[in-house]
Amino acid sequence: MLQQFRVNLDEAILVPGDDLKATVAGIFGKMGVPPEDAQLGADVLVLADLRGVDTHGVSNMLRSYVQGYQSGQINPRPKMKIVRQTPSTANVDSDRGLGIIMTPKAMDIAIQKAKNVGVGMVTVGNARHLGMASYHAMMAVKHDMIGVCMTSCPPSVVPTFGAVPRLGTNPIAVAVPAKNEPPFVFDAATSSVAANKIGIAKRLGIKLEPGWLADEHGTPIMEAVDPPEKHILLPLGSTRELGSHKGYGLSCVVDILAGVLTGFGYGAVPGRPNFGHYVAAYSVDAFTDAEQFKEMMDEWMQMMKSTPPAPGHDRVMVAGQPEAEVEEVRRRDGIPLHNEVVEWIRDTCGELGVDCRV
Amino acid sequence: MLQQFRVNLDEAILVPGDDLKATVAGIFGKMGVPPEDAQLGADVLVLADLRGVDTHGVSNMLRSYVQGYQSGQINPRPKMKIVRQTPSTANVDSDRGLGIIMTPKAMDIAIQKAKNVGVGMVTVGNARHLGMASYHAMMAVKHDMIGVCMTSCPPSVVPTFGAVPRLGTNPIAVAVPAKNEPPFVFDAATSSVAANKIGIAKRLGIKLEPGWLADEHGTPIMEAVDPPEKHILLPLGSTRELGSHKGYGLSCVVDILAGVLTGFGYGAVPGRPNFGHYVAAYSVDAFTDAEQFKEMMDEWMQMMKSTPPAPGHDRVMVAGQPEAEVEEVRRRDGIPLHNEVVEWIRDTCGELGVDCRV
Repeated sequence: MLQQFRVNLDEAILVPGDDLKATVAGIFGKMGVPPEDAQLGADVLVLADLRGVDTHGVSNMLRSYVQGYQSGQINPRPKMKIVRQTPSTANVDSDRGLGIIMTPKAMDIAIQKAKNVGVGMVTVGNARHLGMASYHAMMAVKHDMIGVCMTSCPPSVVPTFGAVPRLGTNPIAVAVPAKNEPPFVFDAATSSVAANKIGIAKRLGIKLEPGWLADEHGTPIMEAVDPPEKHILLPLGSTRELGSHKGYGLSCVVDILAGVLTGFGYGAVPGRPNFGHYVAAYSVDAFTDAEQFKEMMDEWMQMMKSTPPAPGHDRVMVAGQPEAEVEEVRRRDGIPLHNEVVEWIRDTCGELGVDCRV
Repeated sequence: MLQQFRVNLDEAILVPGDDLKATVAGIFGKMGVPPEDAQLGADVLVLADLRGVDTHGVSNMLRSYVQGYQSGQINPRPKMKIVRQTPSTANVDSDRGLGIIMTPKAMDIAIQKAKNVGVGMVTVGNARHLGMASYHAMMAVKHDMIGVCMTSCPPSVVPTFGAVPRLGTNPIAVAVPAKNEPPFVFDAATSSVAANKIGIAKRLGIKLEPGWLADEHGTPIMEAVDPPEKHILLPLGSTRELGSHKGYGLSCVVDILAGVLTGFGYGAVPGRPNFGHYVAAYSVDAFTDAEQFKEMMDEWMQMMKSTPPAPGHDRVMVAGQPEAEVEEVRRRDGIPLHNEVVEWIRDTCGELGVDCRV
């Protein structure tokens, strides 16, 4: 299934990650973003592409970020302000800064607090799009910490039995260090399917899986059909019988922690400009010996990966493994970008006077 | 659906919660549990019954706890030991104490740390059955804190594409205070369906929902059939197409936080005696004004509950609401216990010399 959403290599141009990153940083710079922030934003976007998370990479997101800066929705030179803090927590006002740039700064605060007192937890209000949630969670890993990231998004998902969207796709990311294995990296929307995938399915003419969507009245569509014009996303679990109340409940948890707890409102607040974020870092050494923990994580991941597969399947994977495998290939061969995307980047660079390396 | 799993009132005896609690505490006492701990254990079990969480109440769990004490698997007089701690964290060895009694003590530590530094997080190793996870999470609510609880259980759930169980039902509970609304209380297994429900479905002759179980080879059963003799639980999401990798990944997160991070091993460790737990408390005041937060939670819950329902449904509910509604009825009318359960309690009290109030 996933492969169907990947770029068709025959129509793609392979771009080295560093060239893409330099070009994207140049575009951010022309939006008025200071050089260090522009580099950081480019790093977040390009890491998504390198890891095969194309929905959150350059091709899918950069255009909307440029529009956000140009329309004034996103502040290129935000002044992050700590609204409240304790030794293990902070709540920050991100001053309408882009989430892909501001959330790593919030995570830096969380990591420092975790170094000081064991756990650090930071909520980010007055925020804009987060990007790939696992980027921020993974920042904790190199400090021998477990990283967590969530974001409360504008409504697109119905509650169980509901007819109107009340929740965003509200993803949860958790990253955990291992010793020789790549880190465990979970990153998933609490909806049945990511919103971006429906658009891509439409473009590619792929039929819906039963349980992916509700119709415009909120009733789950349980047949394989073309995506209808009007539809609403379902929570993970799809129907009450299959546990949609669990996906709905988890999405609520994200809306509370990354929304209500910021004091800046939640996904469905009318007129709320955009997003709220939540990051946390837990120092492994605050619970148990970090070296022993990482060895046990290796053992745990090998146990999971060596699970005998069910009929018709080759192998069992563990969260973060598919992305680590794609990253190895793309760091070597480059990132496949669709012709159309490359043309848009080249045109944009031309218009803005950016040195284009794509 | 849920109603089908509730006790049939025609065959039930209504027992006042306080009488059931006194009786259960008496039974714990005869197991060698000190009086205060016996009261606490009875409170956890009976609150599950009062809230309609019959799977984790007296009728479904007490018998196995008695057997655990009698066989020596559970230690009636455990000495909880703090293995490691920081201002915001602790890892404790629960000395084979019953989880329903030891986990509230771990949560007390977490709450105290959250009072001191904003967040408290405690892992519990060498542990036994947790009981209703939301009991422990809800302890935080009266301190104006958000409570979290997870438990890493023995394997019964396949990873996505796997043929052998590697994970427990690994539940997640999150409780959040509101002002006038009952608290938000999410409490759900990360499996497609709770293990206990399959047993109850078998007893009551209810057919499986498609996607509830895998067959003995790990292939999801996508038809409405009688529960097969040999089966394995599926992660939330049921199939890869519907997002089972998300349920699988969340279950892994629980296995890591409540298992690996304790240093005492995880669900699938061969010969591991039993369970690992994780509790956390986040002080709302460490992020934002608690009164304003609780007012916004009221507004948020009313928004969610007032969602127009989809065709064929009466209303949209929010996590914790069904349980709060049952609790109101059962505190007034008593807890419906099946004749068989009442007889077992009476027999047990007779054998042990406990003053039976049931």
